[in-house]
Amino acid sequence: MKRNESFKKLSEDDLSYFKSVLAPHSITQDEEDLEAFNTDWLRKYKGQSKLVLKPSSTEQVSKILKYCNDNKLAVVPQGGNTGLVGGSVPVFDEIIISMSNMSSIRKFDNVSGALVLPDGTILDNLSTLRKDNTGYDLKQIFVGSEGTLGIVTGVSFLAPKKSKAVNVALLGLNSYDHVQAAFKRSKEELSEVLSAFEFWDQDALKLVKDHLAAGANDPLQSTYPFYVLIETSGSNKDHDDEKLNNFLERLLTDNITQDGVVAQDTTQLRNLWAIREGIPVACLHDGAVYKYDISIPVPVIYQAVEELRKRLLDRGVLGEGKLFTSVIGYGHIGDGNLHLTLAAKEFCEEATDLIEPYIFEWTAKHAGSISAEHGLGICKNNFLSYSKSSSMIQLMKRFKQLLDPNGIMNPYKFLPDN
Amino acid sequence: MKRNESFKKLSEDDLSYFKSVLAPHSITQDEEDLEAFNTDWLRKYKGQSKLVLKPSSTEQVSKILKYCNDNKLAVVPQGGNTGLVGGSVPVFDEIIISMSNMSSIRKFDNVSGALVLPDGTILDNLSTLRKDNTGYDLKQIFVGSEGTLGIVTGVSFLAPKKSKAVNVALLGLNSYDHVQAAFKRSKEELSEVLSAFEFWDQDALKLVKDHLAAGANDPLQSTYPFYVLIETSGSNKDHDDEKLNNFLERLLTDNITQDGVVAQDTTQLRNLWAIREGIPVACLHDGAVYKYDISIPVPVIYQAVEELRKRLLDRGVLGEGKLFTSVIGYGHIGDGNLHLTLAAKEFCEEATDLIEPYIFEWTAKHAGSISAEHGLGICKNNFLSYSKSSSMIQLMKRFKQLLDPNGIMNPYKFLPDN
Repeated sequence: MKRNESFKKLSEDDLSYFKSVLAPHSITQDEEDLEAFNTDWLRKYKGQSKLVLKPSSTEQVSKILKYCNDNKLAVVPQGGNTGLVGGSVPVFDEIIISMSNMSSIRKFDNVSGALVLPDGTILDNLSTLRKDNTGYDLKQIFVGSEGTLGIVTGVSFLAPKKSKAVNVALLGLNSYDHVQAAFKRSKEELSEVLSAFEFWDQDALKLVKDHLAAGANDPLQSTYPFYVLIETSGSNKDHDDEKLNNFLERLLTDNITQDGVVAQDTTQLRNLWAIREGIPVACLHDGAVYKYDISIPVPVIYQAVEELRKRLLDRGVLGEGKLFTSVIGYGHIGDGNLHLTLAAKEFCEEATDLIEPYIFEWTAKHAGSISAEHGLGICKNNFLSYSKSSSMIQLMKRFKQLLDPNGIMNPYKFLPDN
Repeated sequence: MKRNESFKKLSEDDLSYFKSVLAPHSITQDEEDLEAFNTDWLRKYKGQSKLVLKPSSTEQVSKILKYCNDNKLAVVPQGGNTGLVGGSVPVFDEIIISMSNMSSIRKFDNVSGALVLPDGTILDNLSTLRKDNTGYDLKQIFVGSEGTLGIVTGVSFLAPKKSKAVNVALLGLNSYDHVQAAFKRSKEELSEVLSAFEFWDQDALKLVKDHLAAGANDPLQSTYPFYVLIETSGSNKDHDDEKLNNFLERLLTDNITQDGVVAQDTTQLRNLWAIREGIPVACLHDGAVYKYDISIPVPVIYQAVEELRKRLLDRGVLGEGKLFTSVIGYGHIGDGNLHLTLAAKEFCEEATDLIEPYIFEWTAKHAGSISAEHGLGICKNNFLSYSKSSSMIQLMKRFKQLLDPNGIMNPYKFLPDN
């Protein structure tokens, strides 16, 4: 990939302007300090930005964007830099606009907000009304646009009351069919108190046991091919516990689950969640992680893991000391979201070519989406056609052109190259 | 308002083309048959269309729109024609594209679908995935666009399982403050089983009692200034009934409600809902209805009714035999949606001028939206600036221009005139 030479390179004049808008501590130029902003969480993508700006008000964001647009300076908006698709780090020398100084809560219960467009226009579209049917719902185009249309400087959201009663059960199951059966039953029997249904496979648990203290939290007597964590949240602990215990008993009786425990106190509840939350952390241990965050119909979710595993075993590249050390599957059954994850020694072209575009083709063939919740970034922008038709992509490009005619917002990403 | 003369008038050639695309029974030209398509549900708006087309496939919709766009024939997409803001009937001689032949269920559980643009492009953006984070979420711009950007020929939606247990309680309360207190308590104590919280005032109940059989369903001993209907939906009837009965008892003890009943069987449950559902029907009885569907912060919801009522009483135009016969308030507290409704003898300029723009100014002053769920249509398009900033409206116009450059889709509506 080559730098787009129509973008201006940073000059002393540009710096003088930014210094007139921001306080000195809101401008970072030090090479060592820049490192963290140029590198993504997975340590897979690295940019070469020479400048981080940290505005602290919507007006400052507006001034910076207007100047960059007028001068064709490319920018990358960056939030927590926890993205997994290289969307929040620069590719070349784009200026990083860090939102780290804009994390204050403006008003409790409801937080008001605004959008900003590349030409500096400020759009206030985030009222605290739950219902508003006037005009096109423009904010929706910005949600999930990964900083390619503008910068969101504030959001309003509804914070539901914390539930009075929360409980968790862990199940051990013999097959993915049993996982599906348990899911169906949980929707029927736990319905309004069901707040989470997570699954993982035994290879995922093995990684946690091998590398993390949370591995010792597994309360089950044996190992099983699959695990399910079910959480309930409700207003009456007695009612909820009765529902969860009855549910587990019926699953055991009907041989849907082989073993299961219901947390007896808050500590045990936290320990069970720690197993699930340890999985992505444990994957990092072997050096490099290839994460595929795909959305597919529930019945074929685990087939994706099995077929990819077979593909790599057949080629002799999966196992201890091999290119890939594990292929694991875990995710949120309720919304059809699989985190298909490969632990590997390192990032290399050979490894990538063994998985891509194979996994995107597999996903498209099963009517899935190549990105369920992590976005496209630079990792998947050229694979968008596996999930969206060419007329959809053309229309997206026209929207991008309309809102960001100079293309300065987060370039090289999100939409496919021409 | 004047017809936009840049739109072509219907000719014999156009009819020949439509006859080549549609079967004879899918084309309506008979004056008497046209009447129903030209008139809205409230009998407030009336168009002069000479042609209704009823396509039965996405391809037919695409062909019709491409032809109309190429020939600058203005169109009005029409669904069930149940709109309340004149959005689904023509203003002049626009061709009506009725979707009545496209109501089939394509696939149970999930229904797939497509968007169509005015130039005939078909966009398939309605997958059955619950999570899909690839590209701009274009379908969101079409949701609530009232047929001004394209025609939606199919939708996918999630149909939740019907709850095993449903119950309803009716409360009588002394003030709107008590209504708010009951709402807060219901969210805390009924939380996960709370599925509806509706309120109405005594004038609304009076209309139902005066005009409908459902008026006899009121089970309370006295009349109260306010009524609340609470519905619970859950998986365990014993648990839910225990929660609802305990909740009602505590409200009575704490003097938040003066009286209340919990339905004892399905018949009583249906009878209580029939009171609420009778309100909009009962309003039609006096001749004309002015409906304002506004969204405002919950604490000031009822103030809107009181201040409008006072305004009309001060002017001597509210009461039996007067211009307005009642001003009532009812709605969904949970999402801040008030249906502020005036029963009147007839639609006339004098009556309209007494309410508008007063009520829109009042709503804007209280940070509300002038249309919570009914849309803008031709009724409110020129009042959009009360709810959206001029930069938002400018951007909406640019989106409209991008997708419908000839402006043939549902003209004269939705966006403000220039």
